[in-house]
Amino acid sequence: MARTKKITTLDKLKVFALGGLDEIGKNIYVLEYDNDIIVIDCGLGFPDEDMPGVDFVIPDITYLVKNSEKVRGIFITHGHEDHIGALPYVLRSLHVPVFGTRLTLGIIENKLAEHKLDFKPELICVKAGDKIKAGVFTVEYIRVNHSIADACALAIKTPLGIVVHTGDFKFDLSPIDGEVMDVKRLAELGGEGVLLLMCDSTNAERPGYTPSERTVGTTFDQIFINNPKKRIIVATFSSNVHRVQQIIDYSIRHGRKVAITGRSMINIVGAAVHLGYMNFPENAIIDISEIKRYPDNRLTIITTGSQGEPMSALSRMAFGDHSSVSVGPNDLVIISANAIPGNEKLVGKIINELYRCGAEVYNDTTTQIHVSGHACQEDLKLMHALTKPKYFMPIHGERRHLMEHRKLALFMGIKPENIFVPETGRVLEIDQNGARFNGTVTAGRVLVDGSGVGDVGSVVLRDRILLSQDGLIIVSAAVDMTSRLLLTTPEIFTRGFVYVKESEELMEEMRIFARETLESGLYSSNADLAQIKNNIRDNLSKFIVQKTKRRPMIMPIIISV
Amino acid sequence: MARTKKITTLDKLKVFALGGLDEIGKNIYVLEYDNDIIVIDCGLGFPDEDMPGVDFVIPDITYLVKNSEKVRGIFITHGHEDHIGALPYVLRSLHVPVFGTRLTLGIIENKLAEHKLDFKPELICVKAGDKIKAGVFTVEYIRVNHSIADACALAIKTPLGIVVHTGDFKFDLSPIDGEVMDVKRLAELGGEGVLLLMCDSTNAERPGYTPSERTVGTTFDQIFINNPKKRIIVATFSSNVHRVQQIIDYSIRHGRKVAITGRSMINIVGAAVHLGYMNFPENAIIDISEIKRYPDNRLTIITTGSQGEPMSALSRMAFGDHSSVSVGPNDLVIISANAIPGNEKLVGKIINELYRCGAEVYNDTTTQIHVSGHACQEDLKLMHALTKPKYFMPIHGERRHLMEHRKLALFMGIKPENIFVPETGRVLEIDQNGARFNGTVTAGRVLVDGSGVGDVGSVVLRDRILLSQDGLIIVSAAVDMTSRLLLTTPEIFTRGFVYVKESEELMEEMRIFARETLESGLYSSNADLAQIKNNIRDNLSKFIVQKTKRRPMIMPIIISV
Repeated sequence: MARTKKITTLDKLKVFALGGLDEIGKNIYVLEYDNDIIVIDCGLGFPDEDMPGVDFVIPDITYLVKNSEKVRGIFITHGHEDHIGALPYVLRSLHVPVFGTRLTLGIIENKLAEHKLDFKPELICVKAGDKIKAGVFTVEYIRVNHSIADACALAIKTPLGIVVHTGDFKFDLSPIDGEVMDVKRLAELGGEGVLLLMCDSTNAERPGYTPSERTVGTTFDQIFINNPKKRIIVATFSSNVHRVQQIIDYSIRHGRKVAITGRSMINIVGAAVHLGYMNFPENAIIDISEIKRYPDNRLTIITTGSQGEPMSALSRMAFGDHSSVSVGPNDLVIISANAIPGNEKLVGKIINELYRCGAEVYNDTTTQIHVSGHACQEDLKLMHALTKPKYFMPIHGERRHLMEHRKLALFMGIKPENIFVPETGRVLEIDQNGARFNGTVTAGRVLVDGSGVGDVGSVVLRDRILLSQDGLIIVSAAVDMTSRLLLTTPEIFTRGFVYVKESEELMEEMRIFARETLESGLYSSNADLAQIKNNIRDNLSKFIVQKTKRRPMIMPIIISV
Repeated sequence: MARTKKITTLDKLKVFALGGLDEIGKNIYVLEYDNDIIVIDCGLGFPDEDMPGVDFVIPDITYLVKNSEKVRGIFITHGHEDHIGALPYVLRSLHVPVFGTRLTLGIIENKLAEHKLDFKPELICVKAGDKIKAGVFTVEYIRVNHSIADACALAIKTPLGIVVHTGDFKFDLSPIDGEVMDVKRLAELGGEGVLLLMCDSTNAERPGYTPSERTVGTTFDQIFINNPKKRIIVATFSSNVHRVQQIIDYSIRHGRKVAITGRSMINIVGAAVHLGYMNFPENAIIDISEIKRYPDNRLTIITTGSQGEPMSALSRMAFGDHSSVSVGPNDLVIISANAIPGNEKLVGKIINELYRCGAEVYNDTTTQIHVSGHACQEDLKLMHALTKPKYFMPIHGERRHLMEHRKLALFMGIKPENIFVPETGRVLEIDQNGARFNGTVTAGRVLVDGSGVGDVGSVVLRDRILLSQDGLIIVSAAVDMTSRLLLTTPEIFTRGFVYVKESEELMEEMRIFARETLESGLYSSNADLAQIKNNIRDNLSKFIVQKTKRRPMIMPIIISV
């Protein structure tokens, strides 16, 4: 696919996001030049509280499907859901190769297998240092540290210069796997000249440096020393294989066997061991069903549920619903994670339940048992200092994070006119004359609910929210519209409105009111069925607001026989 | 009401909570001795995410109503919603006097006026240092510091000894109003001997001391100095009159006029000024409609909405919906509050919108512009050291806070058997022989929705949640059960299920499926109408799960004519 062509002023590099902005999640970025497009990451997002019933959110890839013959591949930076989760959906309409490192592809393969696709996606394994030709682009994978192993940044050589996309990263100078971030390569690129830096903004509001993952191990060591008699239960992110490795290492050191519970924890540890990203003596791990054979002080249990997920193993333990683990006063539960915004109350509920079981609970407000996987302000400054970009685009964050990152870039000396705070679908255009936002592409969110993709939209969500607020009232009756007769007494059904047995008076009043409205519509006017239904809806609604100050959805089901 | 009677072993002091435990909110505690009951606080709680449509939650006071002839009064510690909010409801069924300090009663009066009660509650104004006889009890008000002015702890003299109830408190050695907490009186009580300490546990997980309210003023001063050209908008809790006073003071010092917006902010500042809890020269404040007459750098706007409340003034500003304030690049917005757990995403949304308007936003993750009103661990230790109680009951907190407070009490030397971690409705019984939990009283939560109090229960909530998850499908038809004939073609109505116009195929399949089920019920069996409806519900449900992996509520409305 190699081509040589003189760059003219007509040749433009287009850079835009189809997701990942104004949210934490759903990361997908696009680079386009002439006849070539590359995609970076393909993540899902989790629904907001204004999307009840929605399982998750994926990006709208209309633009990529329309231009599918140009798309040279999807380059994945690491294996977190918000970077890979939309692949099973996107690959159905976009048959392009997916590039990723070994662990990343291992996780993707598990994910695709669950979805039982009727075709075999092309997955291409790469390693840090590899350079992949993709049309006019050459994509180089560069080792970074993050809260998952085998994460990479990308340096993309374009005809106009080098674009560095950091992926999610932190500088960990003492990583668990010894794979220190490739600072040298980033500095070299800075020396060669970076056209555009696209940089993770998650922690742009946080001052200081992000501590090394290893510091968590030290805390664990201390906790194990201070609690020699207790059974220790640790909940953490299943994808943080280094965290899990450390918990296992310190358990072994303190003479404890490790049992693992929770589907995703078992899956990811399995994959990580299989691919060589974790290692420990085989007898270090016991099956969760065997824990009864060991005294409490010889046991560590590693589990999912650090975000308070209601069906997780930790939640089942807290509510006395776990088949093998019954939590009691000799348990110390460590929640080695921070609550992702929106999950605070769920996590709090589980902590309270665990205390109620008699357990002691450590969480990140009381103990330093979690470190972030994202660069804080000083780390971000280092990234800017190394890459010295001409143009800068903060990515991966809500507006507040992007704007704080902008401020930081100004502090680092980038000119305000060279900073581009992006919006989903808005196109940054770079050519020999400079850079500017110019136009937009189709972008948005597609909701996934059950097996439905995109069939839940704003109307459906509005109804769900309405129904959840004050419930539903159905008025049913059969009428003869020809002779304008009421054939049955109107009945009232409610759901989610009031407890019917204790509100008989109100129910009776509504029945009478509905009957009167219906009769007057039939007898005293020549209103058609639609008008009669509207009258019932409007009048009953006013009546109910006045009686109860509530606004249930009202559905007249009037059958014309 | 004074009585003298020898204490016998039969005389017991009963202490219990009807709310305030396992939650932050709905505080109400009860002391009972012989024929006398006193109630401490009477607050409301805010609904959890599993109570859609519910406005707020009040305590179940069945026990108090049953024993109303014993109740000598409700003693309010301070004017926050979670300590006074249930009064308008509770006073309807419990006609007893309400005691409180001046500002507290001022706020209560405003609140009661909004509810238009058809009787006049007896409100009795007290001040710190006052002692009120109430049956066998004598209730003494003791000055404490908190995030609202005029807050008090209570020392209740009982025939068995003194009970200290801290209310919500912090030790502020440099309070804005100069009213330092009455440490001397607490120490005296400790010297006399405290039988039971009931102590605020909100910040029991937080190490260290809670900073003085005055430290926030210093930060404001610095922000005003560093931003001499900007218009400054501050959102904070309206009830924190000292915070508002400081913002006004520093605005005056930096030559800025202050405009106030947001209903509750205007109300509370009005009441506080009227009662003498705030003061400033009259010309310091301008009406919000006048702000156009002043340059940005001569203006401070104080507003509600620090919790992200969707209808608040700050929210309206962020979404371009405020009648007088349009936010732009020359605005600095300061959110001088912490997000109460559960509100993080709401607050985050507004911050993002403000950034989108071009404003700069300071919040408590980036700047020290808020201090808590509750005692942290070192303050709690001081309270324990001063009062030296025989028995200890942690109150006002979730289980996690109560249990951390228990740990702290053990550290302070209280014997484990003398610590009673309470549960709502569980009775602590104290007599000459000791103390123990013994029995329970009716307790629970009563949901308020619109004008309905208690008519929304678990069935209604379950339906609301169900409806919000996957919506609703109605199958309607008219039948003649005598001749077993279908009179109309079954129709399908959906709400919150799928976007109908884009799912016509599925709708048609459901219609056919419903018709077949209905016909087979009528023609091939002798099922009655209820059985036929059940069949439709069950079969259609299975069909839909298989087709969509969703579980909408299915309501067959089959009218027998």
